[in-house]
Order: sequence, then structure tokens, then C-alpha cells
Amino acid sequence: MPILTSPRLVSPPDRAWPGWRLVIEEPLQLDCGIDFGPFTIAYQTYGTLNANRSNAILICHALSGDQYPADANPITGKEGWWTTMVGPGEVLDSERYFLICANILGGCMGTTGPKDINPQTGEPWALSFPVITVRDMVRAQKRLLDHLGIDSLFCVIGGSLGGMQVLQWVASNPDCVYAAVPIATAARHSAQNIAFHEVGRQAIMADPDWCGGRYLTTHGRQPARGLAVARMAAHITYLSEAALHRKFGRNLQDRRALSYGFDADFQVESYLRHQGITFVDRFDANSYLYITRAMDYFDLAAEHGGALPNAFQGTRSRFCVISFTSDWLFPTPESRELVHALNAVAANVSFVEIESDKGHDAFLLDEPELFATLRGFLAGCAEHRGLTSARG
Amino acid sequence: MPILTSPRLVSPPDRAWPGWRLVIEEPLQLDCGIDFGPFTIAYQTYGTLNANRSNAILICHALSGDQYPADANPITGKEGWWTTMVGPGEVLDSERYFLICANILGGCMGTTGPKDINPQTGEPWALSFPVITVRDMVRAQKRLLDHLGIDSLFCVIGGSLGGMQVLQWVASNPDCVYAAVPIATAARHSAQNIAFHEVGRQAIMADPDWCGGRYLTTHGRQPARGLAVARMAAHITYLSEAALHRKFGRNLQDRRALSYGFDADFQVESYLRHQGITFVDRFDANSYLYITRAMDYFDLAAEHGGALPNAFQGTRSRFCVISFTSDWLFPTPESRELVHALNAVAANVSFVEIESDKGHDAFLLDEPELFATLRGFLAGCAEHRGLTSARG
Repeated sequence: MPILTSPRLVSPPDRAWPGWRLVIEEPLQLDCGIDFGPFTIAYQTYGTLNANRSNAILICHALSGDQYPADANPITGKEGWWTTMVGPGEVLDSERYFLICANILGGCMGTTGPKDINPQTGEPWALSFPVITVRDMVRAQKRLLDHLGIDSLFCVIGGSLGGMQVLQWVASNPDCVYAAVPIATAARHSAQNIAFHEVGRQAIMADPDWCGGRYLTTHGRQPARGLAVARMAAHITYLSEAALHRKFGRNLQDRRALSYGFDADFQVESYLRHQGITFVDRFDANSYLYITRAMDYFDLAAEHGGALPNAFQGTRSRFCVISFTSDWLFPTPESRELVHALNAVAANVSFVEIESDKGHDAFLLDEPELFATLRGFLAGCAEHRGLTSARG
Repeated sequence: MPILTSPRLVSPPDRAWPGWRLVIEEPLQLDCGIDFGPFTIAYQTYGTLNANRSNAILICHALSGDQYPADANPITGKEGWWTTMVGPGEVLDSERYFLICANILGGCMGTTGPKDINPQTGEPWALSFPVITVRDMVRAQKRLLDHLGIDSLFCVIGGSLGGMQVLQWVASNPDCVYAAVPIATAARHSAQNIAFHEVGRQAIMADPDWCGGRYLTTHGRQPARGLAVARMAAHITYLSEAALHRKFGRNLQDRRALSYGFDADFQVESYLRHQGITFVDRFDANSYLYITRAMDYFDLAAEHGGALPNAFQGTRSRFCVISFTSDWLFPTPESRELVHALNAVAANVSFVEIESDKGHDAFLLDEPELFATLRGFLAGCAEHRGLTSARG
């Protein structure tokens, strides 16, 4: 990998994050009106940037993701969140492309977020961290790419919140994206999705350990119970009824009869509790508030005079829009609305609705049709762009 | 109304509940193996029982319902939960039928539940209250009807948990139900529904004010924050995405711009918060745990050797099964499964899927097709039973 960066560790280094950290001194002008900076971006790369810098792919992660799609998560030790997709010989082939994945602004895996120290107070930002938007996340990523000397991305790809970033990339930087792959996403967050996020935020803020967001200062513990409940509620929305039925049905946990009590009788209960508890170990509660808020605020049409096609006016990017039949968080009609807007500006767009019973999370799972679709799409784009080998 | 009962107030009377209260001395044998009693049933009636006691309709209420379908709720002062359906000249016509609605066992509106005093300890039952089932609720209702001298119900009707009770009535008391109307319900609670209930229970139990269920003894306050979060999560499942979009979309609350903060920016957030807060004023948190548990445990096939048709073997009841197109909590396929089981035993069954975008809550709302369907069904049943007037 070419050393394009001279990453500087932030001080104090609060955790050993594998990968790179870039400190950006020049403040970022945020949507809320604040000039924010300096700030740090933690990112990971795979593969080699070719000589004419034309083979870079930006991978955008989702709400609870991180910059490690193909590395073990340094906290949990579990494998990367997109190993099905990213690596040598995979769809996002690190032998062919230069892959970049950065922790989003407001995150908790090395990029500056509410758990980091506000240099002006010497204490964690907590709720004094500015409310950020998806556009702000993309602004921060653009700074990283400027630093890396990459003017144009071969592809920007991501699912869910990652897909929102993809759309925002095209809208904010129309000449920088050759191919755009928004998966299981929408051009705006729906009322139902805002509602589910609000439940999660209320669960966190209802936990007395949250302490008005100042938990790191007051006692150093997360609002664990509230964050776990938030994750449990959200996790249900990532699956489908069919997947839950297939995986668990009404199967009982470790015993053959009902307990007539409030322990986890059903496997689905114990699975959900586990999802809640393990999330607390790896994710910051305030980051959860900020990132869900950014998703709620996302409305690409509203940013462009109320008409979604305006967001893509004149785009020369090639789009591959993907949805899943059983995704009820970002159902197919929302992808279709996006496709209609792209058609309205005569964009080059493919749209595939993939048959799957795995719900929203299908984009993270082993979905052969997803892989086949993307292989074909990327091969076509690479050919058109004259990317014939890793060295371009 | 004929005075069939000599209701005895429980001592101490913890609240003035309009309607009747019956103390049943003879213990009830519960599914958990406990003989439970004495206990109280709080109920309300409308209309007059005819001379041959053949015009009684039992209305079964849902999770957060009560015995006041057509009276103002004594706590909130708001109108009854089924005024669209119950009253003089309405579908459930109090001028023609004798309507009975009882607060369910485990409830918090006068029927014995976890907030009531355990006579053996002199303290509220809290979690020492036995875990009850839908079958236990029906057993308690049967005692009430025995007391009222009603051997056979002209009809049992209810939506959601109320519909589960309808099905259980037919299964437990096959000769006592002339017509059965299970609405927006299922013969078993799905994995996804168990999962949502578990989120609600965890939210309640995560609230330090819950105090292991002993909040009435320790400080006398509800675990308000946890119960509100539970209600918020549940409330989303009662609506449809389309209804939320129609009612709220991404409309902002009381201002024209985003606040870049965590107040309720969107109307849907403020609506949900209101739903959570107001629920706490009228519903007991432990009752919420017990009643959701009863729903989770409900599995009529499992009670009958694993085959749902066995639950209805030999039934002579007439069924009218009703579902709503946008109900994703109890989607139409679950009603269809029920209909297949009824067909398998050659039961007399009508099935109507009603086109509505109002979600699960449609059964409580102004749905002309629901009313028309039920008017027709009940008229046919009344004719066959020879019910020609209020005096039968």
C-alpha cells in the first residue's frame, strides 16, 4: 500500500485503533452553522492505489458499523462487518481496487465523536458535540480524500446509512463519483424510522446513568440498560418477520416447558437480550443519539428545493440501486422513488430488487444475487473507465 | 338492566370504578399450577339480558384496554375505546343485546392484578402475582358468566389480545359460544411479536424505579420512564408505515427548521412521547409485564397436541375472522392460518380481509367495512338463533 498519509495520532490516544488516523486542522463548516475542528478521521484501507489514482472505492458504513469491513473489530475481536464483500478476490476486490473505509463523524471508533475530548474544556464533548448530518459526514470524508490525493472515486458504496452517504456524495460532489451503489436505503428517513429511532433515544435518555449525556465525566459508565434496550428495538427492525420465524419461531430456551416467569423463555428473547448487552461493550450511547439524529434529518429532496431529481441534476455517475424484498426498514418503494428521480434527470441507473427473507440486514449477509449483481455492475464500470488491472 | 349480581366491593376499594365488581371466592386453577383466589372481576354491562338469556355478547379487550368500551375511562375521562362499535343502534347494539366487558385477570382496572393487595402479605402482589395465560383470563370470565347465569353466549368478540380470548373461549368452552368474532389476531404469538414485547419488558425492568417490581411498596411511583418507552415501541407496531406517513410524514413540530438538537423536532416524535407519557397515568407497569407475557405464551395449537384444528374439533360456533391489509402485527396470513384450521374441522367460517392503511389499530377505528361486515354477520346469526328483539 502506498504511504500517502502521515497519520498523526491524536493526543491522548484513547484506544489502539488499527489503521490510520488523520488529524484535520482546518475546521469543517457544519450544517448546524458551527465551524468544527480540528477533528480526527480514523480509517482503514485495503489494496493499492494505482498510478493514476482511478481505482479508489469508498465504503460507507451503517449506523453501528466502523472502518473495519474486512478486519477484526479491535474491541470485540469479531471478524469485519463486510467480509462477505471485501477482500482479495471478493466483489470489492482488494487486489484490484484501493478500498477506503472511514469511521463516520460523530462515531466512536476513532473519528471524532461525542465521547472524545473537547479541547476547549478538557472534558468529553457529550451533548456539547454539534448535531451533525449525513452531509457533514460526507464533508469529513471529502477532506480525507483530498488528503489522500484522490480527486475522483471509482465507486462509493454502502448500505442503510451507508447508502445515504452514497447519495449525499453524488449530490455534494457531482464530479467525484464514477459509480454509486446505494443499497437498502432511501433518499429520506421515513416517519416510521424516525419513530423507531426516537424510541431508542428515549430509552437511552431515560437511563439515569446517562446523566444528561455526561456519563463519561460523572461516573465513567455507559447508560448500559438504556442503550441495550435501544439496540434491541432497532435489531428487530433489521430482520424480517420471516427470518425471525425461521431462526427462532416459538422455540424455547434451554428447557422444554414455559417457566411462568419473566426470564427469557423463548430463544428470540435471549437472542435479543444478547444483542443488547454486547452492543453496549462496543458502542457509545451518545454516538448512538447523534448518528440516529443524522439519519432522521436526512432528506435529500428537502436539501434541493423539495424535488429529489434536483439533487442529481447533470450527474454523470452510474448508479446501481439495490433493495431487498423483505426489508421493511427501507422497503423497495423507497428505492423505486430514488430510481424515478434518477430517471427524471436521465441518469445511468440500474435497479435490482433482490428476493430475500433476511430483512434489512440482507446487505451484510451472504446473498449470492447481491454479489452477482455487484460483480457485473462493477466489471462494466471498470471496463468503461479503462480499469484493466490493479495497476490501472 | 336486570340486577343479576350482588357485587361486593373489595376492601380496601383502591379506586372508584364505575360498573360492577364481583368477588369470586372459589380459587381458579391456573395454567402455572397455582390455585388462585379469592379474586375480583371488574366488569361493565350495557343493555338488558332477555328472558331466555340468549342475547349476551362478551366483549374481550386488548392489552391496554379495559371494561369500558362505551363509557368514559374513569382515569383519563376520555371516551370508551370502542364507542364506534358499542352502544344503542351501533353494531353491538345495547338495545338488542346484553353486552358484557370485563377487565382481564392481571389487569389494572379493578380485576385482580399485580398492583392489588395479596391478602396473605398485606402488600401488593408485584412479581409474586402468578404468571397468567389467555386461558386463565377466559377461565376467570367463565366464572363471571356462571355467576350471571349465562350458560351460552350469543357472541364473543374482540381484537388483538381480545381476539385471542375469543379463540380460547371456543376452544375451552366449545358449547358456550354461538358466534365467535376474532379480529386482527392469531392463534399464536409470532417470534417478532414476542421480540417487541420483550423490548417493552426490558425497558420497564431497566428502569431503576421498577425496583424488582416492588415500586408500589418501596416508593409508590411507577417506573414511568421505562413504561413510557415500552408504550412508544408498542405504539409504532399498532400503526402502519402508511398511516404514520399520512399523519405525520416528516412534518416538523412547532417550528419551521430543524433544531439541531434532541428535542422533538418531528411531529411523529412528539406524538410518540405523548403516547408514552399519557400511558403511564393510566396503566400499571407490572400489569404490562404480565399481560404481554400472557400474549407471548398464547399458542392454541401447542395446547392441542401441536395441531390447530384440534382446538376447534366439533365446534358448532359460527366464526367471522377479520384481518386488515396493513396490520403487520397480526398480518392476514395468520388469520388465514386460523381459517384453514377451522375449515379443516368443517366449521362455519366467514373470512374478511379489510382494505385499510390504518394498521393493527384499524379494529378500534372508524372502518365502515368492518361495521358492515359485522352487522351482516350478527344479523344472520341472530336470525338463526331466533333473536328477533331485545326481549328475544
